[in-house]
Amino acid sequence: MRPSGRALDEMRSVSIETGFTKHAEGSALIKMGDTHVLCTATIEDRVPPFIKGSGLGWVTAEYGMLPRATNTRMRREAASGKQGGRTVEIQRLIGRSLRAGVDRVALGERQITVDCDVLQADGGTRCASITGGWIALRLAVNKLMKAGDVISDPMVDPVAAISCGIYAGQPVLDLDYPEDSEAGVDGNFIMTGSHQLIEVQMSAEGSVFSRNQMDALVDLAEKGVSELAAAQKAATQ
Amino acid sequence: MRPSGRALDEMRSVSIETGFTKHAEGSALIKMGDTHVLCTATIEDRVPPFIKGSGLGWVTAEYGMLPRATNTRMRREAASGKQGGRTVEIQRLIGRSLRAGVDRVALGERQITVDCDVLQADGGTRCASITGGWIALRLAVNKLMKAGDVISDPMVDPVAAISCGIYAGQPVLDLDYPEDSEAGVDGNFIMTGSHQLIEVQMSAEGSVFSRNQMDALVDLAEKGVSELAAAQKAATQ
Amino acid sequence: MRPSGRALDEMRSVSIETGFTKHAEGSALIKMGDTHVLCTATIEDRVPPFIKGSGLGWVTAEYGMLPRATNTRMRREAASGKQGGRTVEIQRLIGRSLRAGVDRVALGERQITVDCDVLQADGGTRCASITGGWIALRLAVNKLMKAGDVISDPMVDPVAAISCGIYAGQPVLDLDYPEDSEAGVDGNFIMTGSHQLIEVQMSAEGSVFSRNQMDALVDLAEKGVSELAAAQKAATQ
Amino acid sequence: MRPSGRALDEMRSVSIETGFTKHAEGSALIKMGDTHVLCTATIEDRVPPFIKGSGLGWVTAEYGMLPRATNTRMRREAASGKQGGRTVEIQRLIGRSLRAGVDRVALGERQITVDCDVLQADGGTRCASITGGWIALRLAVNKLMKAGDVISDPMVDPVAAISCGIYAGQPVLDLDYPEDSEAGVDGNFIMTGSHQLIEVQMSAEGSVFSRNQMDALVDLAEKGVSELAAAQKAATQ
Amino acid sequence: MRPSGRALDEMRSVSIETGFTKHAEGSALIKMGDTHVLCTATIEDRVPPFIKGSGLGWVTAEYGMLPRATNTRMRREAASGKQGGRTVEIQRLIGRSLRAGVDRVALGERQITVDCDVLQADGGTRCASITGGWIALRLAVNKLMKAGDVISDPMVDPVAAISCGIYAGQPVLDLDYPEDSEAGVDGNFIMTGSHQLIEVQMSAEGSVFSRNQMDALVDLAEKGVSELAAAQKAATQ
Amino acid sequence: MRPSGRALDEMRSVSIETGFTKHAEGSALIKMGDTHVLCTATIEDRVPPFIKGSGLGWVTAEYGMLPRATNTRMRREAASGKQGGRTVEIQRLIGRSLRAGVDRVALGERQITVDCDVLQADGGTRCASITGGWIALRLAVNKLMKAGDVISDPMVDPVAAISCGIYAGQPVLDLDYPEDSEAGVDGNFIMTGSHQLIEVQMSAEGSVFSRNQMDALVDLAEKGVSELAAAQKAATQ
Repeated sequence: MRPSGRALDEMRSVSIETGFTKHAEGSALIKMGDTHVLCTATIEDRVPPFIKGSGLGWVTAEYGMLPRATNTRMRREAASGKQGGRTVEIQRLIGRSLRAGVDRVALGERQITVDCDVLQADGGTRCASITGGWIALRLAVNKLMKAGDVISDPMVDPVAAISCGIYAGQPVLDLDYPEDSEAGVDGNFIMTGSHQLIEVQMSAEGSVFSRNQMDALVDLAEKGVSELAAAQKAATQ
Repeated sequence: MRPSGRALDEMRSVSIETGFTKHAEGSALIKMGDTHVLCTATIEDRVPPFIKGSGLGWVTAEYGMLPRATNTRMRREAASGKQGGRTVEIQRLIGRSLRAGVDRVALGERQITVDCDVLQADGGTRCASITGGWIALRLAVNKLMKAGDVISDPMVDPVAAISCGIYAGQPVLDLDYPEDSEAGVDGNFIMTGSHQLIEVQMSAEGSVFSRNQMDALVDLAEKGVSELAAAQKAATQ
Repeated sequence: MRPSGRALDEMRSVSIETGFTKHAEGSALIKMGDTHVLCTATIEDRVPPFIKGSGLGWVTAEYGMLPRATNTRMRREAASGKQGGRTVEIQRLIGRSLRAGVDRVALGERQITVDCDVLQADGGTRCASITGGWIALRLAVNKLMKAGDVISDPMVDPVAAISCGIYAGQPVLDLDYPEDSEAGVDGNFIMTGSHQLIEVQMSAEGSVFSRNQMDALVDLAEKGVSELAAAQKAATQ
Repeated sequence: MRPSGRALDEMRSVSIETGFTKHAEGSALIKMGDTHVLCTATIEDRVPPFIKGSGLGWVTAEYGMLPRATNTRMRREAASGKQGGRTVEIQRLIGRSLRAGVDRVALGERQITVDCDVLQADGGTRCASITGGWIALRLAVNKLMKAGDVISDPMVDPVAAISCGIYAGQPVLDLDYPEDSEAGVDGNFIMTGSHQLIEVQMSAEGSVFSRNQMDALVDLAEKGVSELAAAQKAATQ
Repeated sequence: MRPSGRALDEMRSVSIETGFTKHAEGSALIKMGDTHVLCTATIEDRVPPFIKGSGLGWVTAEYGMLPRATNTRMRREAASGKQGGRTVEIQRLIGRSLRAGVDRVALGERQITVDCDVLQADGGTRCASITGGWIALRLAVNKLMKAGDVISDPMVDPVAAISCGIYAGQPVLDLDYPEDSEAGVDGNFIMTGSHQLIEVQMSAEGSVFSRNQMDALVDLAEKGVSELAAAQKAATQ
Repeated sequence: MRPSGRALDEMRSVSIETGFTKHAEGSALIKMGDTHVLCTATIEDRVPPFIKGSGLGWVTAEYGMLPRATNTRMRREAASGKQGGRTVEIQRLIGRSLRAGVDRVALGERQITVDCDVLQADGGTRCASITGGWIALRLAVNKLMKAGDVISDPMVDPVAAISCGIYAGQPVLDLDYPEDSEAGVDGNFIMTGSHQLIEVQMSAEGSVFSRNQMDALVDLAEKGVSELAAAQKAATQ
């Protein structure tokens, strides 16, 4: 029934290549099927003004898409002079999600910026960014710990994200672009490895959904996150 | 336990003044306690390029805050040269939510823009904007129907929104600013009058929440939306 | 002869509601007929760089219009990415006018920002902003004096503004929008309560006027300002 | 008493060099003492959208200052990404003033853009721009008439502008920068050659002025405009 | 003598992976040592306004760097609201260079946009962009020819680019970042496979160079371009 | 053969008027035929952040064109909200070129900004800007030396620039606009008075050139620069 032939609760194949770029303190190229996102983590000693002197660390994120990551070329945001609403929304979500898995006292007064750049898109780029961004962050923090700059591990729990939606009337896991563009309801679920919720976003454009459908989507998301957490563990050990 | 002395499931008092401005096709000043939002609906014959010639209508929204709507003055977005990420996120949410309650075929090829401007803020401005924006939209559509420009009512279901969150460890309904700034988990629920879900956003900044807590918040939201739908009905009859 | 049926030297009815918003140190909703402007005054301890350390205070103003304050919806300035020329001109005028009525030594090294936001427009918004802005400023300064932060009253003289113009060949007082859009000559007069001049702007678009006509407009303006000063006094006592 | 040693009613020496640049349809370098403004007029066949098809012409203006036209270097507006409020105000004034002297029916459906660029500033740049801009406009219109594109002369009356102000308690004509920066009251008067008024702007920053003082300034302005009109006539014959 | 241990006339190893992304009509990841650039070519039926209806085609380019492509993180251009001067200069150069190798009549009235995005930088990104961009363009044109949309091959000659400079007093080929940041003279040479020149840029910041040195750099560049043209041929056959 | 009737190696007549404006520390109006550029040099005590405390000086440049410097009016960059790519490229070139002729240690920790504003354009504006900009810089440095603020002359060598190109198949010196717009190859050569090279830019849009042609252009440029250096010397003695 699904265009890809996957089962309703079947995720796309996940591949993670760490150390994809040499300059960043942590980096990973994550592939969720044909969605490919390059995630890098940059450590800086400065923090935003609102926490200066607090002893707390900060994790923030930026998101971008290469112009031809998509089927038709999109205008380059740098050329159009601003980040679109969708971009801003996504990068705020990534930052919030990653912060939920970090003990900012243990991190100490430093900032880590996670850049998520979509090289190729086929649906689910924000979720891939969070899952891959966590890996880049984990690797950067490992470097801090190895250097003795951070003593107690601030990465309290792995953070992963997966989309689910109602496609052709059925709850399905990990929508690809053909599904996403047709789905009546579309949800993004960000959780810890132990299924604690960090962020839930369910949205019906020009449509509605029932509480039962909502519950079915959360069930699927829990299955997906378990698999992603395993992949994250394998990639960072 | 709540700073305002309200019960855990008690909403702030709601007041709705329709016809607050004379130029707009529909307008309402909605007050949720000390949160005051002026909502206006503007009908235009043109539609966005991507639906030109489709026969479908469009509903969109813009959101703004007066600089001193808040406790300390914020920089005017027109002066700083762009709408912030929070503003963009909120106005996209308002537009999506209102579209979910509209039959765009019945509306016909025209656009209605709902402007939600916060005159005074005390938490929950995006939810008040949706609830009040629906009223302005309803009144504008009434005018179209009275004039015979629209025959079959495109307003399929009332749309209302309420925030809930975990405050001091307890699920509470309709957070005001003192609660919102302290809450570990913060959710916005947009529903139809009959509790069909349109959008669910739950977010934990630097924290997590369980599935049980999620369910408790949805329960509260259903109670709140029922009361708001009644107030909407009273104001537009 | 006038569309509204008013006498040539008859102002629209004035209504002033102080304390319209709760956060600002001073606030007033001023209505000149169907022109409604919300004015708020915000006190801050910082001053602009060019007077830092001088001991002098500063009064500045910002002006905005809600998108549907007018008969047809205007584009939101925050969305278009800048304040238009008209907006910039008006807010500079408001700031200059209010500063003329303030003893900046007595005010002390602090800044008061007066925000004038037009909720509904029917001509004369800049004049209503000045007259109402003075009230918000007066109320904010009262608060400073009550708290003992300011000893000697810096509000040396009330400041009010009124428009006059040549409509259908006749000098008329307080143009509303139908008159304003037809007037050959259009003037704004900012004065103290005792008719000392602060700013005079007379402008003929595609037309000219004689010195006699100029004098007739100043006469009308003096009458209008007397009435406005009385209304300001009543509202702030 | 005046820093320059001029009499109270004495204008700076005026020099006008027409044809200063070869590309523009009309051009003039006007010097009012040390204030030097290059004015060019460009004829285009298109008109702004709001008068398309009306048969009416349009005259508009733009104003700029070279970064080192002033005593200390100012930031280039093109580099800072926008025209400042002062620039916008001035160019709107120039456009309005020039339009007042043009019969837009006789001009026919075309646009003339007058660019006024200050090469060196010593006070009174907006007035010099109007006086010199009128010359550039006159020359461009002469070209249209010579070519037979315009039959009846649309330049109904010469337009000139002069500043006056209260300096050291005395009304003075044509303020230079040392006077302007000290003057309590500062006025700009735009008139036709026969003393019909087009625009009057009088402004007291942190001060006030009486109606008698206002009258004295208008008297001085009439004297100045007579001299400027003579210089315009000499330059364009 | 060179930090990398390369001979003076030794280029870094070149690797080209075509088809790196699936959506673009042509794509290649080119690696010049540690400089990695993803190049994609997008075919569109529209052309820029200035050649509409001429029957001629157009080739244009855009250039970007991921924020952490470099040793320290650079601000994202989309976030800072504009493309920097260096970016604009480079993308204009890429476009001009590629157009020199294209017969725009044979291409027909369509536009090909070549996006060059630097995933990792180690000097020479603009040259790698041109060499790799030509490959993406070649592949996209192949697709047009295969589909019969273009009959006669518009790719008249391969285009490649290499940097040379004076490092530690010696002319060297293909500067990497450690050399580039120290070099007194820095040149970029864009040529066809048969050593016809398209663009030469030699620049000495705070220094000068002799005509003999210039000739030595051109000699090196010819050697480098021969090797690059061979690699391009191998990758596109 | 050339539209102007000049010999192939004949430059346009050069005229230099120093002290064209009174405020700048150095200024010159340079005319290369009908190309007229006003160059001013401004001395400031601050330097850019990246050299603060280094004891080194800085020279930078900005470039602009008056809207009607050209045959058809161009949009004012300040009005369009940004400097175009061409402007940015040119002003970076001017700055780099002038810095090559300055001993930044001898200059001391101060910045000189050279503004080059094109009053009238007929090809070769960037070269005229460099040649004239050097004069303004020379005059400003003279002022510093006369005041004893700079002891050892930091102007190590005169810097001049000239364009050459292949026009109608022939190498020609100093292209004017009619030649420039037709030329297949276009080069800019910046040299010291003793023919040391600072910057070479040769560019063929949609065309190529041989190494022999390149050599012929350099020969012409050397001749042109000798003449310009003589004119610079005459103007600054």
